[in-house]
Amino acid sequence: MSAARHSIGVEVRYAETDAMGIVHHSNYLVWFELARTHLCRQTGKDYAAIERDGHQLTVTRSDLRYRRPARYGDSVVVTAWIDDLASRRVRFGYEVQRTEDLLTTGTTEHIWIDRTGRPCRGPEALMPAFRRLAGIEESP
Amino acid sequence: MSAARHSIGVEVRYAETDAMGIVHHSNYLVWFELARTHLCRQTGKDYAAIERDGHQLTVTRSDLRYRRPARYGDSVVVTAWIDDLASRRVRFGYEVQRTEDLLTTGTTEHIWIDRTGRPCRGPEALMPAFRRLAGIEESP
Amino acid sequence: MSAARHSIGVEVRYAETDAMGIVHHSNYLVWFELARTHLCRQTGKDYAAIERDGHQLTVTRSDLRYRRPARYGDSVVVTAWIDDLASRRVRFGYEVQRTEDLLTTGTTEHIWIDRTGRPCRGPEALMPAFRRLAGIEESP
Amino acid sequence: MSAARHSIGVEVRYAETDAMGIVHHSNYLVWFELARTHLCRQTGKDYAAIERDGHQLTVTRSDLRYRRPARYGDSVVVTAWIDDLASRRVRFGYEVQRTEDLLTTGTTEHIWIDRTGRPCRGPEALMPAFRRLAGIEESP
Repeated sequence: MSAARHSIGVEVRYAETDAMGIVHHSNYLVWFELARTHLCRQTGKDYAAIERDGHQLTVTRSDLRYRRPARYGDSVVVTAWIDDLASRRVRFGYEVQRTEDLLTTGTTEHIWIDRTGRPCRGPEALMPAFRRLAGIEESP
Repeated sequence: MSAARHSIGVEVRYAETDAMGIVHHSNYLVWFELARTHLCRQTGKDYAAIERDGHQLTVTRSDLRYRRPARYGDSVVVTAWIDDLASRRVRFGYEVQRTEDLLTTGTTEHIWIDRTGRPCRGPEALMPAFRRLAGIEESP
Repeated sequence: MSAARHSIGVEVRYAETDAMGIVHHSNYLVWFELARTHLCRQTGKDYAAIERDGHQLTVTRSDLRYRRPARYGDSVVVTAWIDDLASRRVRFGYEVQRTEDLLTTGTTEHIWIDRTGRPCRGPEALMPAFRRLAGIEESP
Repeated sequence: MSAARHSIGVEVRYAETDAMGIVHHSNYLVWFELARTHLCRQTGKDYAAIERDGHQLTVTRSDLRYRRPARYGDSVVVTAWIDDLASRRVRFGYEVQRTEDLLTTGTTEHIWIDRTGRPCRGPEALMPAFRRLAGIEESP
């Protein structure tokens, strides 16, 4: 089994460009988050619902490589997948492509926190679905 | 009496520019808010504290005129004042200047809401200070 | 004849929300711009191409009314149309809706500028298409 | 010799917070850039002038660790320094602190590009100043 990949189309917004005429590098984190939201929705629960239930995935690290710039007028495809999964942590992987060109790659690492803001285990009701997304075979 | 004016210095951030090489017009609302926060702090309570007490000023209207663009490398001065004050509403006025040049002017209108999100009167503990800021003479 | 209306779907991004739990009011200008870009594309030329040809529509005014907030998890529809058209100016109108609810309305005013940044008449190659978009009958 | 460190004060803007009530993680890249701009100004040339001369530092990688969140009402100190310097590449290091608390650390890697967008050596007029900033002793 391999990890499920979820892709979304993103159209570059004028406000996302900067004076160099390219997408400002901070926006890729915003696009990553959008693709991650869609991926998490494949668990059958959307992220807004997970939050209302009192759990949040808070980001602890991000690592991005900018290979080629995106520009105004571009439509890109942003793909997210679960790269590594533990009981208290999740690492997501990402790619941004414009047709054949790979523009940006990256990872973000997250921990689960509860209503009080303290680190906790991932919600039990959700973990089997996360393991399936991650391509981890359940023990029989 | 006239309304108190509060000015802050803002340095243009690269991420605020767009592919036209100028500050994207959406950022002026962010700068206005920063100047408004400082102005409200003159009441002796900062806005974060007002929020913790259960009151929020939610924006209901904004009106901006963009006269000259700001660019990367510019330092600008953003000035805010209370333009109109009622028991349930506040209108703020704003100016953005680069040395002698007037770049942008605008107003934002706000209503007070309580913890439930319902419109309410401005908090009693705060209104005398708001009236002083607005330059409204208290009846003796 | 009436003005052509163009609608796009926009999914609220987490980064667009603020500590009040709602979409920060500066983001509506970004969504308006996205809908305006799509509307202008109906002229048969996309806005990136218009820019390469040396013309830009620079914003001179914006006026927004925020009626109900959008939240994370919401999908909204943003509609743009040409509200008023002159040889050197364009005013666009906008609406943001979440199913039946009207969340935000607004207008932005723009003037045409040339490569030197000076105000100019709208590009001749484009104006007939703009007049059609605006619902203005051409004289026979 | 050790690398010069440059610190700036940054006040959290409401628009930078998200529905979790904390600063959205994409904004740290914007703050890093602001501190980097100030650091580069210590070379005696500001970054806007370097750009006009035809050289740009384009970001190729970023790596951030988010330890504690910043919140609305916070004032933080963002520090930047040159972490590694080569003829064609620069790596900057960063720290964000709120009084005693270390909130975020990170690095960004950049390459020099010329007017055509091609990678090039750092501008000769600037490199001695960059080496001094980096704390690299010039050979006598």
